[in-house]
Amino acid sequence: MPHIELNSDQPGIRGLLQYRPETARPLSELADVLLRGPSSLTRGERELIGAYVSTLNGCQYCSSSHSATAAAQLPGGMGLVDQVCADPATADVSPKVRALLTIAASVQRSGHDVTGAEVAAARTAGATDLEIHDTVLIAALFSLFNRYVDGLATVAPDDPAVYAAGAQRLVRDGYVPPPAVPGGPATARA
Amino acid sequence: MPHIELNSDQPGIRGLLQYRPETARPLSELADVLLRGPSSLTRGERELIGAYVSTLNGCQYCSSSHSATAAAQLPGGMGLVDQVCADPATADVSPKVRALLTIAASVQRSGHDVTGAEVAAARTAGATDLEIHDTVLIAALFSLFNRYVDGLATVAPDDPAVYAAGAQRLVRDGYVPPPAVPGGPATARA
Repeated sequence: MPHIELNSDQPGIRGLLQYRPETARPLSELADVLLRGPSSLTRGERELIGAYVSTLNGCQYCSSSHSATAAAQLPGGMGLVDQVCADPATADVSPKVRALLTIAASVQRSGHDVTGAEVAAARTAGATDLEIHDTVLIAALFSLFNRYVDGLATVAPDDPAVYAAGAQRLVRDGYVPPPAVPGGPATARA
Repeated sequence: MPHIELNSDQPGIRGLLQYRPETARPLSELADVLLRGPSSLTRGERELIGAYVSTLNGCQYCSSSHSATAAAQLPGGMGLVDQVCADPATADVSPKVRALLTIAASVQRSGHDVTGAEVAAARTAGATDLEIHDTVLIAALFSLFNRYVDGLATVAPDDPAVYAAGAQRLVRDGYVPPPAVPGGPATARA
């Protein structure tokens, strides 16, 4: 049961976004530009970083949601996502993505844990400065999301179908809900 | 020296915001609504939570910057901020703020660390659900900021005057830079 009384029975961050629209808007816009905006990292790769950090933080809602969203946008599907979340060192990803996942794991613990050697390794594997920047910020953003979702004890459904449906919606519509249509149904997305 | 080549010599998050304006906008808007928007917590109290979390994370830039911004907006000034960052249990704050700082410290470690007892204690001390929500989100936001700033090894000036000047600017103008004036100087704030 959530620590506070929400104004809906939406699970995970969806209930929090609906509860506080003033903070939901910039949070959703940040997720959208970082995870879906123009980038030399694919949308699947960026969601993979988010799923991995969420798994390291033990955040069931975010891990399930972003694993499903990554799987829906990666050729390797959920098999690859599961490999990465279990151990990026042996997962079937490019050396560049593996090096970026190493940086993300450091950020998950502490910003101070990112080493010059990790950054140099990513660069050697072909990562650009912007890709390194975005990896750090994605890992930092999920450090926020995971704490927000679990710090308020929101509900995480067990049914994988819930997350698969949410992933389809995110892949199609993104993180920023379209403006409400007068007379139409109000929807919340995350 | 920062891990990536920035396009300015701005320290801390200011250099990062200038480097990536697409993510800077929603990040700044989120900080502004959460730390300065309408709330039953004062701006000083909200900055104090950010300064405290940044201190726990050992983030020199954010800790110095938000300590100065909190001090500029709290009757107790920097003496009170120093007390809180050293030990909220003995600091001269209200029982409500003390209980919210306890929740923030839990969030800093992990969302899972926030207990029902901590939330109940905050409510007994007079905290509303929205104040508890905002405390968790502020602590989560600084978990992001601290990782972003230190994960990219940005520069943190030693001179307290730098942070005091930044605090005056934040108190006056907020986190969202005013629109650039054509022909006027470009400025970055954070």
